[in-house]
Amino acid sequence: MPTDFIAHHHPLTDVEILEDGRLRISARTASGQAIDSAWIRYELDNEEYLTALEPAESSAGAQCWRVEIPTNPGAATTYYLFKFICAKRQFCLDAGGVHSRIRSRSFHFKHVQGLQTPQWVWDQVFYQIFPDRFRIGDDVFASISQEPDEDKEQTPLSDWDAIPDPSRGSSEFFGGDLNGVTDALPYLHDELGVSAIYLNPIFASHSNHRYDTDDYSQVEPRLGGEPALLRLREETRARDMRLILDAVVNHTSVHHSWFQQAQAGNEQYRAFYNFNSEGRYAAWKGFESLPKLNYANPEVAAAMYSGDNAILRHWLRPPYAVDGWRLDAVHMLGEGPSAHNNATHMRGMRECVKQEAPQTYLLGEHFFEATEWLQGDQEDGAMNYYGFAHPLRAWLAGLDISGHPGAIDGREFAAWLAEARAAVPCPIQLSQLNLLDTHDTPRFLTLLQGDRDLYKLALGLLFTYSGAPCLYYGDEIGLPGGGDPDCRRPFPWDRERWDIDILNWCKTLIALRKSTPALCRGGHIDLWADTDCYCFARTAKEGSVIIAANRGDAATALLDTRLLGAPGGYWRDLLSGDIFTTDEHTLALSLPSKSVLILLPE
Amino acid sequence: MPTDFIAHHHPLTDVEILEDGRLRISARTASGQAIDSAWIRYELDNEEYLTALEPAESSAGAQCWRVEIPTNPGAATTYYLFKFICAKRQFCLDAGGVHSRIRSRSFHFKHVQGLQTPQWVWDQVFYQIFPDRFRIGDDVFASISQEPDEDKEQTPLSDWDAIPDPSRGSSEFFGGDLNGVTDALPYLHDELGVSAIYLNPIFASHSNHRYDTDDYSQVEPRLGGEPALLRLREETRARDMRLILDAVVNHTSVHHSWFQQAQAGNEQYRAFYNFNSEGRYAAWKGFESLPKLNYANPEVAAAMYSGDNAILRHWLRPPYAVDGWRLDAVHMLGEGPSAHNNATHMRGMRECVKQEAPQTYLLGEHFFEATEWLQGDQEDGAMNYYGFAHPLRAWLAGLDISGHPGAIDGREFAAWLAEARAAVPCPIQLSQLNLLDTHDTPRFLTLLQGDRDLYKLALGLLFTYSGAPCLYYGDEIGLPGGGDPDCRRPFPWDRERWDIDILNWCKTLIALRKSTPALCRGGHIDLWADTDCYCFARTAKEGSVIIAANRGDAATALLDTRLLGAPGGYWRDLLSGDIFTTDEHTLALSLPSKSVLILLPE
Repeated sequence: MPTDFIAHHHPLTDVEILEDGRLRISARTASGQAIDSAWIRYELDNEEYLTALEPAESSAGAQCWRVEIPTNPGAATTYYLFKFICAKRQFCLDAGGVHSRIRSRSFHFKHVQGLQTPQWVWDQVFYQIFPDRFRIGDDVFASISQEPDEDKEQTPLSDWDAIPDPSRGSSEFFGGDLNGVTDALPYLHDELGVSAIYLNPIFASHSNHRYDTDDYSQVEPRLGGEPALLRLREETRARDMRLILDAVVNHTSVHHSWFQQAQAGNEQYRAFYNFNSEGRYAAWKGFESLPKLNYANPEVAAAMYSGDNAILRHWLRPPYAVDGWRLDAVHMLGEGPSAHNNATHMRGMRECVKQEAPQTYLLGEHFFEATEWLQGDQEDGAMNYYGFAHPLRAWLAGLDISGHPGAIDGREFAAWLAEARAAVPCPIQLSQLNLLDTHDTPRFLTLLQGDRDLYKLALGLLFTYSGAPCLYYGDEIGLPGGGDPDCRRPFPWDRERWDIDILNWCKTLIALRKSTPALCRGGHIDLWADTDCYCFARTAKEGSVIIAANRGDAATALLDTRLLGAPGGYWRDLLSGDIFTTDEHTLALSLPSKSVLILLPE
Repeated sequence: MPTDFIAHHHPLTDVEILEDGRLRISARTASGQAIDSAWIRYELDNEEYLTALEPAESSAGAQCWRVEIPTNPGAATTYYLFKFICAKRQFCLDAGGVHSRIRSRSFHFKHVQGLQTPQWVWDQVFYQIFPDRFRIGDDVFASISQEPDEDKEQTPLSDWDAIPDPSRGSSEFFGGDLNGVTDALPYLHDELGVSAIYLNPIFASHSNHRYDTDDYSQVEPRLGGEPALLRLREETRARDMRLILDAVVNHTSVHHSWFQQAQAGNEQYRAFYNFNSEGRYAAWKGFESLPKLNYANPEVAAAMYSGDNAILRHWLRPPYAVDGWRLDAVHMLGEGPSAHNNATHMRGMRECVKQEAPQTYLLGEHFFEATEWLQGDQEDGAMNYYGFAHPLRAWLAGLDISGHPGAIDGREFAAWLAEARAAVPCPIQLSQLNLLDTHDTPRFLTLLQGDRDLYKLALGLLFTYSGAPCLYYGDEIGLPGGGDPDCRRPFPWDRERWDIDILNWCKTLIALRKSTPALCRGGHIDLWADTDCYCFARTAKEGSVIIAANRGDAATALLDTRLLGAPGGYWRDLLSGDIFTTDEHTLALSLPSKSVLILLPE
């Protein structure tokens, strides 16, 4: 793979919005590259315009180019790319890298006018918690969790050290609760370094996963109810931690009062759902326990997002004031029994939520490609299965998300990552929630058949790639687990059972992430890709970082460092302390077998 | 490049719409390929579903697979692809070929429910005529063209054998007219084999190109007015020929009565345009002679497409009953001074035009990527610069559309073609208007610096690639020409000045195209790509065709013929008559320097 010799870091470094609304745009080329002409290619009203780039300041490694362009007058997004003519060849830099031609507009850089994405997300380290399985709160608060609920079956709790029983499905409870989460904050925040928590659903529900909501206005009593949430909120706030909840607004449970009334023949509430003439109702993926809401009914939209007391507004308000919503299965939401007019409601949802609290993080759950929800008018980010977890699984575990063989080499891995990055505006790339696994997938360590070296490599990428990293509870201590429910084992609080080496690796990576602006907010340059290796840099004014991953035997990668802005020629590996020296502008990296190096300029 | 060993030919062969609306879908794999499992992956309400393909009939070369799936309930388009697991590897066939992973949804096969595209287009050979430069009608009709028009400057005509004078711009006239076109029908249709004519603008205008319309309801008197158009229509109909006109509905000329009245202060007509508070008006790309229409004004939409007597309806009606509209610069059309809400008006335009005449061909002019207008709800096809002319120019002439160096190799050429094909539903691919050059570009022969071998290669691809081929007048006799106005030279009717070899090549290709269903309506399989060679097949039940192009020195390509459905092992080159023999299922093709072979099974 040829090294990219052109770089452009939207939005923080290289795009300045001028007072008159025009954009001052910069790009950099590696010094020593003979350039015949340099252009920015952009579209206004869908028509191509080509303007010459002017040479600006230069450094030892790079030449800077600059230009001012207007923004697209008739639509929010201005598409642009750079075209360099060198020795009678053409090199186009779009959001997916350098290519020999102008590729599809979908890969171009996208400046979205007025895009407001919560930048605090970029700096977070998230931790996902499945509340029933993380921790049982200390006794002093336990009484809250044990209030009887006449309406619900009183299932005896499973033993905390047991493995979830597949035959018991969603009705097996281990007794984790919100006080347990609060009690664990010293571990999560002070020890591990986590700064944000994403909780799987906590609203009243009959099931252990609570993706079938009985009452959106009530925190599940078994989790401690509102008092426990309030305590968690206070304690997270005291640590400057963020808190994200899971909103399941595509469907309700059959126990929800709306559905109960609908079933009882109440026409107002029947119109909340999709009953056909034979009295059958539409349900999520056909599961009768999950009746699908009908957003063609303005009362549904009002109850969920647009009304003054809509659910999504309610929990954004004090005293809870949660920092964001993870929106479950939200691509399926729509009018009637389908996803019809999904975008209309997603835009409406964004508008209402941002009106209520502009800094809210709207995080979509999309198991597959999320591109269309991530163009700036709908979500701030997605659970990044498509652009991170899936390619990583293919490259390191040789599997696709269906469990089929799906091995790819490092070049295809790089291409996949680039394709996914390029599809969304840069500020949204930084707001993606990267993950290795969740409550819906086997644990990544288990997918790797327990290969701890590859797992540490994967963690290395998780904490250095564009987007906010999210650990799924237990990832950091090497908790294994296959598919649901095995991936939802209770967290073992006996430290004897932890993989301390992995925990320390996570702590190191988290500390590095938090102290390195380039990792949180930097640009991305691909540096090398072959069968077993993938190397890239995150770049920022404050300094660049090189990340070099090797899934195979010991190997060498030759990296061009001209665009990395590092004054000296020495790079130090964070973990080993080894120093690598550049020869001219090439860094010859020796990569040990199954390893990741994270190099900072020395 | 690995040969694609999986094929799927949407829509004619491999997608059957069942009575209940479900789709019965087929795919074929090359025989002898060990397949562990076979799947169709499709989306309903944006969620992935995976269903096993069932093995169906097989032949010597191929195994057929079949499955039935529902269509997407909430939107018109159902996305799908095929996934085959072979020897622990994954092979995904999407609309752009076989890849080792599931790529972006934008590349998946697209079944658009209820898509009505005029299938007659698929079988046509188009011929584009710039009326002032093609032919002056015989004397008997000349009087029509010479009616004086008081309003217009009476410019003396330039000598027919002269080269257009750049200094005279759009005011130089050579005197070609519609009777000239009619008079040339024996040549065009009976001799050359053309079946459809696309005319550059013919409505009343002051300029020679008439992209600044003075009156949409009147055929330019200098072209012969309505009587000449009627005669052309009758004579084309008598030959079963189609006729397409050019609609310039983004802007008018400053002589249009609307604009004249607007300038005179008439508020009704000022609202047809975009005047700002200082009295300045928005104009196409800033050209003051081309005031931009404001589609936010319902009267503009009514005048153009939605009203009972709208311009776009009027000419679709008898006695003119033209067969389609080429829509000029239509991506720039919109509300206010920009392209705002372009899609809304394009959909409205489609609806009204199809209501008036369902078989109308709506052809968009897009100099660059047209993907978003080609999803089935707007245009039937585009002037295929993006997906054909641009890549061909890059591969053969080493230039991009701006005239910059832009050489690509055969692999990148194949990738570009595939990317563009994959972006649009298959019926639309077949309705694209492929071209080498137009009145807006230098002649392709001139771009090739007169290299007749490469030019014949380009023509070979024009007449065999997916989409309807369109010759720009003179292309078939080797007429040279640089950029506008040189590419608009008068057609030399002295046959001594024709390149008869190229003419005969065109006649041969046109006859082949018209007699070969696979070329008009067939599927596409990539067979080979390297630096200088690109080989593909068009496949249909009636028989497949192999097209093998080589831009460089003599070379050999090894083609897998298993999916081509040819019973025997012999293929005959159309032009040389040479017979090539397959060894097992591999056809080792010797490709002469700068050549194209077009092979039919023997």
